[in-house]
Amino acid sequence: MALSYELIKECRVTGARAGMLHTPHGSLPTPVFMPVGTQATVKAMSPEEIKEIGARIILSNTYHLYLRPGHELVRDAGGLHRFMNWDRAILTDSGGFQVFSLGALRKIREEGVTFRSHLDGSEHFLDPEKVMEIQEALGADIIMAFDECAPYPADRAYIKDSLGRTTRWAERCQKAQTRKEQALFAIIQGGMYPDLRQESAKQLVSLDFPGYAVGGLSVGEPAELMYEMLTATVPLLPANKPRYLMGVGTADYLIGGVSRGIDMFDCVLPTRIARNGTVMTRRGYLTVRNAPSASDFRPLEEGCQCYACRNYSRAYIRHLIKANEIFGFRLTTCHNLYFLVHFMASIRESIMEGTFPDFYQEFIARFGREKEV
Amino acid sequence: MALSYELIKECRVTGARAGMLHTPHGSLPTPVFMPVGTQATVKAMSPEEIKEIGARIILSNTYHLYLRPGHELVRDAGGLHRFMNWDRAILTDSGGFQVFSLGALRKIREEGVTFRSHLDGSEHFLDPEKVMEIQEALGADIIMAFDECAPYPADRAYIKDSLGRTTRWAERCQKAQTRKEQALFAIIQGGMYPDLRQESAKQLVSLDFPGYAVGGLSVGEPAELMYEMLTATVPLLPANKPRYLMGVGTADYLIGGVSRGIDMFDCVLPTRIARNGTVMTRRGYLTVRNAPSASDFRPLEEGCQCYACRNYSRAYIRHLIKANEIFGFRLTTCHNLYFLVHFMASIRESIMEGTFPDFYQEFIARFGREKEV
Repeated sequence: MALSYELIKECRVTGARAGMLHTPHGSLPTPVFMPVGTQATVKAMSPEEIKEIGARIILSNTYHLYLRPGHELVRDAGGLHRFMNWDRAILTDSGGFQVFSLGALRKIREEGVTFRSHLDGSEHFLDPEKVMEIQEALGADIIMAFDECAPYPADRAYIKDSLGRTTRWAERCQKAQTRKEQALFAIIQGGMYPDLRQESAKQLVSLDFPGYAVGGLSVGEPAELMYEMLTATVPLLPANKPRYLMGVGTADYLIGGVSRGIDMFDCVLPTRIARNGTVMTRRGYLTVRNAPSASDFRPLEEGCQCYACRNYSRAYIRHLIKANEIFGFRLTTCHNLYFLVHFMASIRESIMEGTFPDFYQEFIARFGREKEV
Repeated sequence: MALSYELIKECRVTGARAGMLHTPHGSLPTPVFMPVGTQATVKAMSPEEIKEIGARIILSNTYHLYLRPGHELVRDAGGLHRFMNWDRAILTDSGGFQVFSLGALRKIREEGVTFRSHLDGSEHFLDPEKVMEIQEALGADIIMAFDECAPYPADRAYIKDSLGRTTRWAERCQKAQTRKEQALFAIIQGGMYPDLRQESAKQLVSLDFPGYAVGGLSVGEPAELMYEMLTATVPLLPANKPRYLMGVGTADYLIGGVSRGIDMFDCVLPTRIARNGTVMTRRGYLTVRNAPSASDFRPLEEGCQCYACRNYSRAYIRHLIKANEIFGFRLTTCHNLYFLVHFMASIRESIMEGTFPDFYQEFIARFGREKEV
């Protein structure tokens, strides 16, 4: 069996649920935040550090690895796990989001997508069959069906057309799959139209995938709209399959997603803002790069047990970031990933103890979106 | 006692010697290569990684830390050891080399040097007393007297004048010193004139410093000229004090320096070329960034026990470097520092076993300067 999801406990008030995801590279508690290793490395970190933080699954990117170093090379290296020295679970996305983000550089047809590389302008063609070939060469535990991530905003007619194509592409991916030890997840689209989200979900659920992702959200829409889409979609998904909300990685969206029944999340934001000198804390964001940290000898977050907080001051980390020193980026990245992984663990604990609604309320009272501490 | 040097074994053929340097932050075997942490961090590395590599002393830069984050801040943080979380020995240079490298941006008088910051163009004045104040605030175990590192080439009259000033400045540093737990080393100058090198050495030795550095070498002169200067100078230095050749960090210069009686070395080269994708091996240099490494699944160096070589292929490291990924810079830096630290340990072992001359001959036969493997 490639993958199984074990539902362990459900919140009686919200949609939150605690589970275990069993993969060929180990089991992991859900809900879970997956650090992103776009180019076969979680930026600035070693695999050992990612493990020390507590992460049991990471994400990597089909689009990037296809272009560089090439999926055949990764296959020849023994697959992505061996290439990057990571023996825990990996999920590869389908490249859909990256390709559609290229804007004028890509052209979509029923058959597939023609696009130009962001690296050298070379022309490429990706279709469901090719995306499966690439992901099979990479060899992740969880792979994603090729989908169209429509722009936001987009009109209803376009979205309706697009979600049908995403379903047909998902079916083509399913048929093209040859390595049964990989779990192929489908991606629900449907823009900001609840009924189209439901239509997409129904079509894909009828094809019986081992897991479902919700794509095309957190693309600039208000939080309420994202939550409305989740509320419309998640109840249609089978309870015995994992549910993955793509591209979400702020504390408020994570807890908001969990309360609506999501099990898995990923986002580049925590690692990206880290390299810009901003860290996440239980009380909001701290831009350690800024002047107030210059002679502040406290850790990034009092009480945090991450490597950065146990050993270094804000003053030192600010100095490193200002001086463009790699070790500064390592420390802020370490903190942010530790923060999110442990935040998810706290959420799970509250679900197990039956106190998730209180946990959520307490969080909302303390943490405002993008609040500076 | 701030520092002591214990001479353990001398080579009977060359000037090579094995010793132990005892500092307030631990003892370390010599000859030793000191990784450079210019801005209070060895670029790309954590202190734990530097320890794992086997380094027991690192160097940091007075000039850089004075400008950013400022020596008072480091003092307020509890000194450099605590600021950067490094509990082994530290040597800070005097800033002389950096200030004199500024060229048109600095002006030298007997009193001191006026210069403009490379960061923001602000004007600063450094003299021996100020340099001592800064280095006392930083709190390294070994500190360096403020010297004039004259340009190469330079005419004899200028060098003669300059080395006299360097001696007078060294004496002013000695008088300004208040923290007796720090060992103040003097820096021998004298350009490429053997008799002026000897004059500088005699003047400084008469002032009785706990250690002596040879400065102003490896500045573009041929290897033979550098060796000629060492041969003229080192025999004048007391046998019971450590001798430090500044700014030297290639395998051939290290072994050449050791054979002429040098105990300590530092250089940014191994970490700098690492970040450009070049690594040091027992057989020469490997530019892992280049195409031949693209699908080479061997380690950087067969048989090397460093973290990079134990876990990653050239293909993976090349991919990371090409993709500008921090983890790639970490791996090449780790390898180069491990290589040099262990190279020095091998040299020491051969001195202890009385086989250093054979070791040197075997090295010369195998390793050409800047040879590509």
